[in-house]
Amino acid sequence: MDNNLLLEALKGSPVERPPVWMMRQAGRYLPDFMKLKEKYDFFTRCQTPELATEITLMPIEQIGVDAAIIFSDILVVLQAMNIEVEMRDGKGPYLPSPIKDKASLDKSIIPDVREHLGYVFESVKMIKKELSSRVPLIGFAGAPWTLLCYAVQGQGSKNFDRAKAFCYQHPELAKELLQKITTTTIAYLREKVKAGADVIQLFDSWGGLLTPVDYQVFSWPYLQQIIDALGDSVPVIIFGKGCWFALQEMGKSGAAALGIDWTCSARNARYLSGGQITLQGNFDPSKLLSPIPEIKVQVKQMINEFGKDRYIVNLGHGILPNIPVDHAKAFVDAVKEYQS
Amino acid sequence: MDNNLLLEALKGSPVERPPVWMMRQAGRYLPDFMKLKEKYDFFTRCQTPELATEITLMPIEQIGVDAAIIFSDILVVLQAMNIEVEMRDGKGPYLPSPIKDKASLDKSIIPDVREHLGYVFESVKMIKKELSSRVPLIGFAGAPWTLLCYAVQGQGSKNFDRAKAFCYQHPELAKELLQKITTTTIAYLREKVKAGADVIQLFDSWGGLLTPVDYQVFSWPYLQQIIDALGDSVPVIIFGKGCWFALQEMGKSGAAALGIDWTCSARNARYLSGGQITLQGNFDPSKLLSPIPEIKVQVKQMINEFGKDRYIVNLGHGILPNIPVDHAKAFVDAVKEYQS
Repeated sequence: MDNNLLLEALKGSPVERPPVWMMRQAGRYLPDFMKLKEKYDFFTRCQTPELATEITLMPIEQIGVDAAIIFSDILVVLQAMNIEVEMRDGKGPYLPSPIKDKASLDKSIIPDVREHLGYVFESVKMIKKELSSRVPLIGFAGAPWTLLCYAVQGQGSKNFDRAKAFCYQHPELAKELLQKITTTTIAYLREKVKAGADVIQLFDSWGGLLTPVDYQVFSWPYLQQIIDALGDSVPVIIFGKGCWFALQEMGKSGAAALGIDWTCSARNARYLSGGQITLQGNFDPSKLLSPIPEIKVQVKQMINEFGKDRYIVNLGHGILPNIPVDHAKAFVDAVKEYQS
Repeated sequence: MDNNLLLEALKGSPVERPPVWMMRQAGRYLPDFMKLKEKYDFFTRCQTPELATEITLMPIEQIGVDAAIIFSDILVVLQAMNIEVEMRDGKGPYLPSPIKDKASLDKSIIPDVREHLGYVFESVKMIKKELSSRVPLIGFAGAPWTLLCYAVQGQGSKNFDRAKAFCYQHPELAKELLQKITTTTIAYLREKVKAGADVIQLFDSWGGLLTPVDYQVFSWPYLQQIIDALGDSVPVIIFGKGCWFALQEMGKSGAAALGIDWTCSARNARYLSGGQITLQGNFDPSKLLSPIPEIKVQVKQMINEFGKDRYIVNLGHGILPNIPVDHAKAFVDAVKEYQS
């Protein structure tokens, strides 16, 4: 690998400067992405390896990040499980037949991932070839809890109250669904690694909606299963938005790194996670709307606070669509200019 | 006061059982509330003392909570400041002319609150009379930061990115707006106390969107000003949704109690807040959709974890519109049945 920074940081090895990438870096803030978005609908872009490859490479070439992350969506796993997912422009995901009882749960399957998600593995292979050895490629999946939120709620939501009510009213059905998602996700990620993904990130976007106790019931055990199953084959990054309360457990899980959001200071994150594990984050995405000189000052300060080692610079959540490209680039440049 | 539990808990005095009330207890889960909602629009209900009184008393009489909280809205303060606010059914607040620069900021005023918000003080007096001495009455206001979010964003939002960008791009204008809101809020709350409010709660619903550092810049100093200004005249409860990272500062602020959301365990909340201050919370509102026996078990467990003293039972955020009334009542009954 020409640029080994991410893999070294994940191992905990000392680096000259921390690596940097951005969640949703291949996204709507890029004019070239918007051009493809006008021509092809969301799942066409996901399912066409040439398009997924072109999009995945955009931020490598235009912003200069230290890692690629495959353009795809966490909900493709539900689609493969026979749970219909539509992507409605401006409104996000919509699932016409959400899971609400035993009958609807029984319609979901544990699929042969090579048959149902072969296009993802084709994309991974094509991206790896196009990347050559420039930077590592991150593959990803949603946490089973976060996928359950969509599978049951049927769409995005402020509090996913229907999904949570389902868990509290039918905990056994919820656990059955979570296990089906987990089993599918493990098979999916194994194939992704086989196809060439160098790192896996798991997104628990809605973990922070649970109480700490419920997180240990409905989310964490399934994430731990996935970490255990991927074992030593690939470094795994766990990002639980709002999950500061679970950092201690996560720090002992065998994951290679933990994603941190911006409500958790570097000091708190190091303390809560046990002080040994590599951390990733946590620039407030809205702060990329600050003037460029201010962004540069704050990135430097952030690196000083986390420390340059066992650290991956990132945002605390996905980049917002209204971020000017030169602000995103200033964020990345500030890391490259870093001198402790 | 016939029922002194809330005031005793706020003083930190030992009580037989903790007091209980629910954020948004006079709200859409109550069929009688929905009947009034069909007949009168939102601000008519706020601005008509007879209606505000009727609504405020509903949960006292129908659910049996230990405190009343005046039916009103945090945004009435912006209205008084000459910032137009509409309430759109099903969509929430909408501000046709949000603040975006010096010119729009200069159009906002520091009003004579008796002139512009007299209807609130009339309501407080009427409610106090109707309540007689049954339970104490809580008055409230939004935190200046949370009001800035609406004043600048112009409507509800997942991440209030426009409001945050305004602060990062124009910190001096943001501080000027925050100070205007703070000065108005202090005058408003003094009048509310004069009219009879026994307790004041400040809602920082969007404090948890800020980094800990920005919270100390854009939110906390203004809350501290309000606490200082109300001084010893009334006990103040601070509720910062998602603000676990600020509990230490809050614990030393002179507030009588701190609201806690459900992502922060009782143990963490006691530890982070310094262990001395009264805490309020933190039942996950979605958990009121659990079966009633389960609600009762979990409420008992929650009280055991917080301890019966220096504790006010509440939800971790507002009650959801789809909670069955008998579930809300079971929550309150479980507290009344509590025996340590």
